[in-house]
Amino acid sequence: MKITITKSNLLTGVMAIQRAISTRSTSPILLCIKIDTRNGFVYFTATDLDISIECYVPAEVLIEGTAVVPARHFTEIVRRLPDAAVTMELVEEGLLSISYEESQLSIKTLPSADFPEIPEVTEGSKFELNTLIFKQMIKQTVFAASADEIRPLFTGILCEFEGDKFRLVATDTHRLAFRQINIDNKSEEVVKCIIPAKILGELARLMYEDDETCCIIITDNLASFKHLNIRVVCRLLEGEFPNYRQVVPLEYNIKMKVNKKKLSEAVERISLFTLANDKSNTIGVKIQGDTVVISSQSEMGHGYELINTEKEGDDVNILFNSKYILDALRVLDEENIYFELTGAQSASIIRPDSATEFIYLLLPIRA
Amino acid sequence: MKITITKSNLLTGVMAIQRAISTRSTSPILLCIKIDTRNGFVYFTATDLDISIECYVPAEVLIEGTAVVPARHFTEIVRRLPDAAVTMELVEEGLLSISYEESQLSIKTLPSADFPEIPEVTEGSKFELNTLIFKQMIKQTVFAASADEIRPLFTGILCEFEGDKFRLVATDTHRLAFRQINIDNKSEEVVKCIIPAKILGELARLMYEDDETCCIIITDNLASFKHLNIRVVCRLLEGEFPNYRQVVPLEYNIKMKVNKKKLSEAVERISLFTLANDKSNTIGVKIQGDTVVISSQSEMGHGYELINTEKEGDDVNILFNSKYILDALRVLDEENIYFELTGAQSASIIRPDSATEFIYLLLPIRA
Repeated sequence: MKITITKSNLLTGVMAIQRAISTRSTSPILLCIKIDTRNGFVYFTATDLDISIECYVPAEVLIEGTAVVPARHFTEIVRRLPDAAVTMELVEEGLLSISYEESQLSIKTLPSADFPEIPEVTEGSKFELNTLIFKQMIKQTVFAASADEIRPLFTGILCEFEGDKFRLVATDTHRLAFRQINIDNKSEEVVKCIIPAKILGELARLMYEDDETCCIIITDNLASFKHLNIRVVCRLLEGEFPNYRQVVPLEYNIKMKVNKKKLSEAVERISLFTLANDKSNTIGVKIQGDTVVISSQSEMGHGYELINTEKEGDDVNILFNSKYILDALRVLDEENIYFELTGAQSASIIRPDSATEFIYLLLPIRA
Repeated sequence: MKITITKSNLLTGVMAIQRAISTRSTSPILLCIKIDTRNGFVYFTATDLDISIECYVPAEVLIEGTAVVPARHFTEIVRRLPDAAVTMELVEEGLLSISYEESQLSIKTLPSADFPEIPEVTEGSKFELNTLIFKQMIKQTVFAASADEIRPLFTGILCEFEGDKFRLVATDTHRLAFRQINIDNKSEEVVKCIIPAKILGELARLMYEDDETCCIIITDNLASFKHLNIRVVCRLLEGEFPNYRQVVPLEYNIKMKVNKKKLSEAVERISLFTLANDKSNTIGVKIQGDTVVISSQSEMGHGYELINTEKEGDDVNILFNSKYILDALRVLDEENIYFELTGAQSASIIRPDSATEFIYLLLPIRA
């Protein structure tokens, strides 16, 4: 292999694949980056076997070939290279030469044959999504997935294509985030799969061009995402996702409209009284007439904040985990949001004051 | 106590004193902030007994008084307050009320009498320094002090006033940074003291106005720094600082002028080959004719970088700890720097290509 590449393109390729580099593997090959050449482009690939990322960038390919280099060392070098043309050449068995200006570095390589093959994924159910909307959908659901690996199913996000609807659903059993859009889809076949939330989160970060297309292919056990020069392949989670239709209440007695920023700031301040002694971050939400009072107390003191609202229905006094409220408010861009409640012991819903099909279901804390 | 204060002034006062709040004290009072009123100002004070910081800000003082509040909790609240007028009132024994808009928080306080008294420091040797220059002097020496508490003397910086000279000197015994300026000083008395490097570092951060004055008072065991609305008092380190005059070589055989940015980038890249296996970060510096070659090798590979220089004297091949070179280059703003050497086994000097009185002494690694 011999290529000449700009520092900028080299950096683009190497940085795009960082999240697929294993951080704790005992297999040295998974701590590596594969560099190979195809059709006048240089491909950078990393995989931790759960997620694989491939990114290609333009380069002058002088001799085709493949090199597998230690990821961390190579990345550190690339980040510090001068803004110059860089020539990389496999000079002898196991040694990659990196030369630029009047300098030369030589780094050890590993056998290319040992690097795991990334599946091509050409057959399967195919969909196209606008990246701007897909990124927003991921952001609005990913936080509600569980981080607890003991129940792996809940660390995933349900992706469901059903006629002209596409939806993402995530839950950690305490709260559930649901986001749906209309798509162009002729097929009547329902396609659903569960994708690890952290991989979708990473995908959202990787889709840097907002108004582009992400091409998705779903097979029985894999999902592939292609966006411009980046391809992500991941394994699906196995299992049956809980039926969100059964848990989302269809009716409510109380509906409150409130300014999102005011609510968010009040909950943040009041929740400072809960941190010290209480993992459930309990705050009181008292909806009374045209106001909502957020309050809390602990051995540090106590506090309340009063916000004006518009309300239909009865007064209610309910306890929530403040973190769960803040998580949802953070991903909504609307000026006002709605709370829909049926009582102090029942699940409540937060939704935006807009046509966006987002529903956030939230269980109260039992007093 | 009852005061009304803007959120912005409250935040200024509370943030200025953060570094004096103890992070590991078992005494609850040292985890607190003292708030008191004097002459229409509100004073915020924190101390960990080694360093004390006091900052005053304007406020409407309705009732004079003192309150001592848990630092972390109070700081978190202040950071999140809305941009509004805030009224703080000691409403009953042990309870401070914080009210703003339509909200009210109440936090527990501790007995004011238990908070340590911060010494006034009015008598002693007095000096005035321009904050811009003082900050630069601190930055150019603080990094060379030791972080190792086993030999506390070397965690300090020597501050020496001698006639019209003021100098700071720091060393960890492997390298030494020396910075000197001319000052207006009529007194012939030599005043010297050793101030903990981390306290001078904190002082440099606190002096936010560049072209102002810092008033210094030094007593037998304390130093006091006053800058605008901030006062820092710290205990001096005891002991005899090594005589820097004896270790700085007065002569050299080899003098090399080199571009600082090029040298710095080359050393950074080459040092990537040393990190894995070598705490001494050994790199080779080969000064030969009109070039300097920086090189290193390890089990990860090897590399060299070549830079053009201007040189007087013999060729030389010397080993350095790359970190020690980079530390010095980072605090120099000049385009070019000088290396002065006497041989591969002797201390070398780095100094700026300007009239700035900065000397950085650096021991080589013995091959």
